[in-house]
Amino acid sequence: MQDFVFCNPTKIIFGDEAELKIVADIKESGYKKVMLVYGMGSVKQNGLYDRVVRRLIKNELYFTDFGGVRPNPVLSHVKEGIEWAQRNSVDCLLAVGGGSVIDEAKAIAAGFYYEGDVWDFFEGVATPTKALPIFTILTLAATGSEMNGGSVITNEEGAKKYVMSSPCLYPKASALNPALTFGVSPRQSATAAADAISHVLEGYFTKKNNLPLNDRMAEALIKTIMKDIEKILKNPSDYDARASFMWSATLALNGIMNVGLKEFIFPNHLIERPMSAIFDIPHGEGLSIVMPAWLAWFRAKEPKKVDRFCKKMFKKSGADGIAAFEEWLCGIGLPTRLEDVGIKASDIEAIAQNAVMGAKGSALYKEYDKKSIEDILKKALKQSN
Amino acid sequence: MQDFVFCNPTKIIFGDEAELKIVADIKESGYKKVMLVYGMGSVKQNGLYDRVVRRLIKNELYFTDFGGVRPNPVLSHVKEGIEWAQRNSVDCLLAVGGGSVIDEAKAIAAGFYYEGDVWDFFEGVATPTKALPIFTILTLAATGSEMNGGSVITNEEGAKKYVMSSPCLYPKASALNPALTFGVSPRQSATAAADAISHVLEGYFTKKNNLPLNDRMAEALIKTIMKDIEKILKNPSDYDARASFMWSATLALNGIMNVGLKEFIFPNHLIERPMSAIFDIPHGEGLSIVMPAWLAWFRAKEPKKVDRFCKKMFKKSGADGIAAFEEWLCGIGLPTRLEDVGIKASDIEAIAQNAVMGAKGSALYKEYDKKSIEDILKKALKQSN
Repeated sequence: MQDFVFCNPTKIIFGDEAELKIVADIKESGYKKVMLVYGMGSVKQNGLYDRVVRRLIKNELYFTDFGGVRPNPVLSHVKEGIEWAQRNSVDCLLAVGGGSVIDEAKAIAAGFYYEGDVWDFFEGVATPTKALPIFTILTLAATGSEMNGGSVITNEEGAKKYVMSSPCLYPKASALNPALTFGVSPRQSATAAADAISHVLEGYFTKKNNLPLNDRMAEALIKTIMKDIEKILKNPSDYDARASFMWSATLALNGIMNVGLKEFIFPNHLIERPMSAIFDIPHGEGLSIVMPAWLAWFRAKEPKKVDRFCKKMFKKSGADGIAAFEEWLCGIGLPTRLEDVGIKASDIEAIAQNAVMGAKGSALYKEYDKKSIEDILKKALKQSN
Repeated sequence: MQDFVFCNPTKIIFGDEAELKIVADIKESGYKKVMLVYGMGSVKQNGLYDRVVRRLIKNELYFTDFGGVRPNPVLSHVKEGIEWAQRNSVDCLLAVGGGSVIDEAKAIAAGFYYEGDVWDFFEGVATPTKALPIFTILTLAATGSEMNGGSVITNEEGAKKYVMSSPCLYPKASALNPALTFGVSPRQSATAAADAISHVLEGYFTKKNNLPLNDRMAEALIKTIMKDIEKILKNPSDYDARASFMWSATLALNGIMNVGLKEFIFPNHLIERPMSAIFDIPHGEGLSIVMPAWLAWFRAKEPKKVDRFCKKMFKKSGADGIAAFEEWLCGIGLPTRLEDVGIKASDIEAIAQNAVMGAKGSALYKEYDKKSIEDILKKALKQSN
């Protein structure tokens, strides 16, 4: 087990009316000027926005409004948000939405106090040390952003989809009400499951890790997520399945699963990020395409661990095991081949080039050169190719 | 899944020289007057005390000394500690030891600001809302106190061993250096394993819980603890096993395992506490005696869950499964029958009477009356009885 420092101070308010209880939390914490950050308007259509706003008013909290966050949130909109927050002198942010909205809120929070270009944080030129306090109301369980200090933003110039993280970006509190996710479509739910599974898999498969505790916990979590999504697809209003999935997706990336790992690298995310940055496909769909291909490639290096995973999850090993994983992903309605989302063999080079650029300076760089990424992506072409 | 609020802000500093790194943390947090709380002197003998003190001096931190905490820490000593802390106007506590030392430090921390009798907190007459900041250097992994807000103290008058807990009692930071536990004796290590396992089992077996995620995580954790202790007994300086065990024992009672449970009751602890309070036996040894007896009693109510556990851990079910668990406990050198620690059949009534007193007002009270506790304890008599 490697030396580590672990601290995750985010307060989770889980269950009935969590979205209202968190407003009381904001009030009790002494904040006065809230900036509501949200997406493309679904929270207005389903009444959540109104309920939250009424509660803000009831608590005599001043608030201002910043909607329009895109599914793959973009830098230009982050910058608008920073300006808006500064102009209105807000003292905290309340993100209402999924991972994209929360990630953008974090970027706004970090940019608020920074005199330079907020993109510096994503390029690794600077590190956020101070940020506006962030509260979140989660409407789509998937990314884990509600309980970690990470944020992924796409810079439209150059289609760069990069990550920053800092202890100052952990939300103060996050409201997780599973009932708010009843309306998440089957496709989006499956996409979310692929995302959550991938978060656990990255640490689980990182070479050099050999932590039985991590292995067992990771397998417990992935098995749970798989069972949950199967139940959700049968009955989208299955509270227990939505609840179990919501908390599992949070655990998948709140740090607790990766404690003590020698390395925690993100090859699947490295490869997927340019796919969603260039082709604007949902992140989880990209991951569903990358994961089986990456596993097949990785099996040549670490057959034992890949076989262990496939056996535990699908009672099969070798190529059959990976095929079973792909079949399971197809079964929950996800694409698993590049062509399924309109990416062609001729696009592979550009994706690989972009990915290599994103890996620069990280632990990933050594192992994932352009050639390996191309090899992996080729495995994600239709089998007839 | 039940509604819950989860927040665990304790920072864990894990690994090499953690006991020195935490001093820098105290300094950076702005504290100036540290009260060192420790036990019966082993930290002085093994040099840890000196290393920590030198680091405090190097960091220009004023410190005062409060040793003598007993394995089952007692109220009278807590009160001495409160007086000492007040007389020296300390502004934080640094507990160096195992769960007992940390628990006593918490009681001192809570009592420091309280005008009434600190025992009020344990009787449930008052709740701590303010406490001195607590830092800990863990020398014996077992109780999980290094990352939770609980404290167990024994009031010598009436042999009452009660628990208090409060969000203000979470340590600010805890230093976990597995190498500091190399010297923990085989017997103490096994005792610690029984304690950690019991913490997971209490939630796992609480009736009405049916959370697949919790079940899988609990099984992953118990399996890990079992394998770790087997390795530790073979090689007390097995760093990876000591590290895995240390972190597992922390996870077992830092709240993450019990999130969303309908109930989290402590029947094994309820029954064991009077045993260690009256007979001053190590808590983990008492638990090793209670657990198989309780499981046998509980199996009549919930055969499915008990069988599931025994099958997962020992590949056996029914009475054979419970016997296998008891055998495993014996195998790591623990007592499993009352007589093994000098408790006689004629003592059972007094233990049950004390336990019922301790359960008053809690969720346990309904299910565990004097008669049930006596029935359970009778199962822990030598089989010839």
